[in-house]
Formats: sequence, structure tokens, C-alpha cells
Amino acid sequence: MAPTPLTPDVRAALTAGRLGHLVTINSDGSPQVTVVWVGLEGEDIVVGHMMGGRKVQNIARDPRVALSLEVEGTNPIGMQQSLVINGTARLVDGGAPELLQRLAEVYIGPGVKFPPMHNPPAGHVIHITAERIGGVGPWA
Amino acid sequence: MAPTPLTPDVRAALTAGRLGHLVTINSDGSPQVTVVWVGLEGEDIVVGHMMGGRKVQNIARDPRVALSLEVEGTNPIGMQQSLVINGTARLVDGGAPELLQRLAEVYIGPGVKFPPMHNPPAGHVIHITAERIGGVGPWA
Repeated sequence: MAPTPLTPDVRAALTAGRLGHLVTINSDGSPQVTVVWVGLEGEDIVVGHMMGGRKVQNIARDPRVALSLEVEGTNPIGMQQSLVINGTARLVDGGAPELLQRLAEVYIGPGVKFPPMHNPPAGHVIHITAERIGGVGPWA
Repeated sequence: MAPTPLTPDVRAALTAGRLGHLVTINSDGSPQVTVVWVGLEGEDIVVGHMMGGRKVQNIARDPRVALSLEVEGTNPIGMQQSLVINGTARLVDGGAPELLQRLAEVYIGPGVKFPPMHNPPAGHVIHITAERIGGVGPWA
């Protein structure tokens, strides 16, 4: 599918400090969900992972992912807004500690040191290209 | 997989009024996410759907689902708690307006009328049996 541009309201929702629910597909076709911190790098949505867990293996095999976030505000019948993005992920080696340090200032608070250890593993940064944007809100 | 009992802390997390991110699998194997209201009925997690959309079609074809929720509180290194449940879903015809009315009192507020129309469609209730419980928290 073709990439979909991230409009200003989508970019604002992605950088508001709300957790992302990142879905990848297991080798048996079942869904795998990890709750993650989310950032932007140009037109990519970025997620850092130090340990190379299941979601990294899944993306290496099948790059189709979904990411959903809750968004401040309600629709006209009182339902909370949300953003659901389907897209394609690619893995970039290294850079996870630096990204997580940047995002920790948003998700935990200014001045925090994260990850809280010396010499953290370089890990991976997951870059997601949005292809379909839905949920509940003006972007849907 | 065998059902996993919902412990009291998991039941509390599921009924705290936090949105559920419900994942089903599309016919092409890609993930589909809908943000939903969540309730309990005995040992089942229940989600109401009036319109029979994509997630209902997906469950009829492949009952493997995941549900994730954010949970009040943080772990020792400051990360917000979350609950990720993998399980099997089954569809029960009817009952969606009654379930949504009950959940609207939690998710919107006491006394609200929901759905806000006369003669809403009976829809479906999705019943989820938990098989694996993870995320960030004492249940993981």
C-alpha cells in the first residue's frame, strides 16, 4: 500500500505522551501486542527496543503492523478519540537507548535517565510507515 | 490453549474504565485493531458491537484475538502498567445495546443513555476466553 502522510493532528496525537499498542503477527498467524513509547522521525513513527524480543522477530518475518493510541477528547456521542494506524515496519540496528532517553523525557518526565543502566544494548529502532489511518477522530 | 483464570488484579484492571485495544486478524493475515469498551461476564471478557463490522467477520473466520489495556500505576523503573491478554473469541448474537448501556455508565458516566438512538440493532457480544496474560505489572 502507498504511504499515507501524517497530518498535523495525527502528529500531535502521536507525540502527546500516550502509550502505543503495537501489534505484530506471530509465526502461527496469531496477534502479538506490546505497549510501547512512540516517537516521530520525519515521516516515520519510531519505537525503540533494546532486547530484540518477539516483536522484532515478528517484524523481520512479516512487516505488517498496527499501532493504536488513545487520544484526548471525545466524539459527538461521548466516545473517547483514538488513532489506529496500519502500516509497514522496518528494523534499523542500534539507536534504541538514545531514542528511549528522548522519549523518557515525554513519558516519564524531564531530566529522567533512561534506560537506568550503564552500557545498555544498542537494540533496534522500529520505523513504521503509515498506510491507513483510522480510529475515532477527525482523521478517521 | 487452556483458559487462564482472571485473577482479582486482572479483573480490577479490566473493569477500571480503561479502553481496550482489541486485535483481530484480517483474511490476508494482517492485524486489525478496534478500540473498545470492555466488560466481564463471569470468566469471559465481553465486548459489544452493534454493526457487525470487520472485527466480527474476522472473529468468525479466526477466533484468535489479543486485547491490551493501560493500567493505573507504574513499575519500579517508571513505566506505566499494562495488561495484554491473548485468547479465543466467540460471537453471541444479540445483546449489544444492553451491554453497551451497562458499559456506558462506566466509560461515559452515570445516567447516560447509550446507544443514543431508538431501536438499536441487537448486534453481537464478543466473548473472550483469556489464555495468556502479559504486559507490565504483577500479572506478567
